[in-house]
Amino acid sequence: MRDVSIIGVGQTKVAEHWDRSLRHLAADAVLAAMADAGIESADALYVGNMLSGLLTGQEHLGALIADFCGLRGIEAVKVEAACGSGAAALRMGYAAVAGGLHDLVIVSGVEKMTDTVNAETTTGLVMAADADYESIHGLTFVSINALLMRRYMYEYGVEHKDFADFSVNAHRNGVGNPNAMFRRPVSAEVFARARMIADPINLLDSSGIGDGAAAVVLCPSQMAAEFGNGQAVHIRASSMATDAVAVHDRPDPLWLSAVEASAFKAYQQAGVGPRDIDLFEVHDAFTIMSALSLEASGFAERGKGVWLAQSGEIRLEGRIPICTMGGLKARGHPVGATGIYQVVEVAQQLRGQAGENQIENARLGMAQNIGGSGATVITHILEARD
Amino acid sequence: MRDVSIIGVGQTKVAEHWDRSLRHLAADAVLAAMADAGIESADALYVGNMLSGLLTGQEHLGALIADFCGLRGIEAVKVEAACGSGAAALRMGYAAVAGGLHDLVIVSGVEKMTDTVNAETTTGLVMAADADYESIHGLTFVSINALLMRRYMYEYGVEHKDFADFSVNAHRNGVGNPNAMFRRPVSAEVFARARMIADPINLLDSSGIGDGAAAVVLCPSQMAAEFGNGQAVHIRASSMATDAVAVHDRPDPLWLSAVEASAFKAYQQAGVGPRDIDLFEVHDAFTIMSALSLEASGFAERGKGVWLAQSGEIRLEGRIPICTMGGLKARGHPVGATGIYQVVEVAQQLRGQAGENQIENARLGMAQNIGGSGATVITHILEARD
Repeated sequence: MRDVSIIGVGQTKVAEHWDRSLRHLAADAVLAAMADAGIESADALYVGNMLSGLLTGQEHLGALIADFCGLRGIEAVKVEAACGSGAAALRMGYAAVAGGLHDLVIVSGVEKMTDTVNAETTTGLVMAADADYESIHGLTFVSINALLMRRYMYEYGVEHKDFADFSVNAHRNGVGNPNAMFRRPVSAEVFARARMIADPINLLDSSGIGDGAAAVVLCPSQMAAEFGNGQAVHIRASSMATDAVAVHDRPDPLWLSAVEASAFKAYQQAGVGPRDIDLFEVHDAFTIMSALSLEASGFAERGKGVWLAQSGEIRLEGRIPICTMGGLKARGHPVGATGIYQVVEVAQQLRGQAGENQIENARLGMAQNIGGSGATVITHILEARD
Repeated sequence: MRDVSIIGVGQTKVAEHWDRSLRHLAADAVLAAMADAGIESADALYVGNMLSGLLTGQEHLGALIADFCGLRGIEAVKVEAACGSGAAALRMGYAAVAGGLHDLVIVSGVEKMTDTVNAETTTGLVMAADADYESIHGLTFVSINALLMRRYMYEYGVEHKDFADFSVNAHRNGVGNPNAMFRRPVSAEVFARARMIADPINLLDSSGIGDGAAAVVLCPSQMAAEFGNGQAVHIRASSMATDAVAVHDRPDPLWLSAVEASAFKAYQQAGVGPRDIDLFEVHDAFTIMSALSLEASGFAERGKGVWLAQSGEIRLEGRIPICTMGGLKARGHPVGATGIYQVVEVAQQLRGQAGENQIENARLGMAQNIGGSGATVITHILEARD
């Protein structure tokens, strides 16, 4: 298989985009990525999206967005894996380029969550869970995560305030990201006082939903110089793993086995270990997910994820910076787009274009996108190329 | 890239399955395909589905169905391209195996259309069209096809009764397919008297919606003997093309340019032409789509699709049999599953397992799955292997 590089990136600000439809947002990101790569056409477009059918009455986004971007005719398809849809689409694009099916592929993630017609967003998000065994009992997606967080607190003797540093760190980094939805810092005190959403998850444990789109352009690494802007980033690993969708079907709800499987497959493919990773865009949909992901990815011992956050090592200047551009918490979480935002942000760091959030000497960055409460996990490891 | 073979097929009957949930239907098909191939595990599962979110409140089908089939942990994702979702998923599976990402891949299409919770099926189907420029004006998916049919009749001086043979042929073939939804023949007289749906499309111009699932198992052709049942079918070509989703955006609404692009790319990959194809599973969602697809795929001159049907050459004993197991019209059209049903049926013909509908000496079969009114088209050409 061929090595694959990212030769262009694009993104919109995550926000309540009342003046931009889903196709406009996608085009903003795709055309920005194409301009960044210096290309005017492509062989295929893979679109990550979760909610357009239920929320806006529009499926068939592959053909729709390809046409709207001036790419009428090319292979185009939508890929869905709940909140992991973005990176799942990237995985399909990676396979197409690595395997030799296509040379020039665009992958976009897009979600329109604040301007809806058929149902409210909460009804949409719970489609990531098991409809027959979880949602039918009245569980929302937040409350499933709340059950996990409560169990974590019970098992490991952790208090709610111990999760504060995840939120504080993400919001601190969001300040420096012009595309972030929330650009104000929060303190541990503000975190503790935040409005309760689903006990013990409060507003500042939770990522913010929003409208947004991000895109990347892929090509074989050996062609990157020909197409690219001289700032290609190499995809060292791409992996996907799954688990039971319903939390009660997992032997150990506090161990995200699909995170472990996906991360360690990625480490193996890249020939590296957790200690080699310079930054980690973690799927911090809720603070509990950050803790569980850090543990199952090998960055913290079991039950010690919150202590890693408290140690300061997750900050920009720490051992393993996470949410370097604000994460899902502060950049915002337009669900099907998030996986591509994460990869765009890793690319920004590796290209030295992360502005005031730049991590010094970042060479190897990891992005991990999760669908549901850990049922689909896609991990990509990117490397800076000189 | 590696040659790819289909080493196992499975399907449920298309019906109103009030006693089977979406995941049960998918598992019925997947487990049947795995048994047919003689395998007990796989590297990945790609699921084609269009409507599960809106109609049943369940997304995230990749992980959900993988787990329910006893495949917890493997790479699994949903692929969506409206009514072309099934073959779009097959296209992703083909890319993964051809490109060397995986050796053993299951592709399933599944749709649950008659037992719904959030919205009615008509609301779901129109998501294949352009929400902002077609459906918002009150167009249903049937009425978009009705506009195409009316235009065809006007441009080519054709009457409604001239489309009868598509329906008569499909229903005749449905009689011999135990998995078909409708197993009764219809006459041209019954066709002419059928209840109007959206003038000029009547009930017998329209495919029947239903619940169903189909699945195939793929592996590299060179491994087919090792895994398979001795009845591997070779995928000689796989191609996808797109067009504007909204019909009014196409320069010529009566020419399905994505059908042409997809079919002729497939012919080129296989090194064959229309005259080499022994049977053609056409996407006969409506009789007008059969006519337009036969024309753009090179089986009939422009405006002559209906005459090909009237000539009898589309029958099992004709030059180019279509809808050999009943097609969308009589087998039924569980939209996201249809593309896999078509491929399973071509495989049945090439394996000599089509029962009373068997086409003699079938060597090369084509399956063409369409999303929307021609906006996404995926064509596969399969070849019998001795």
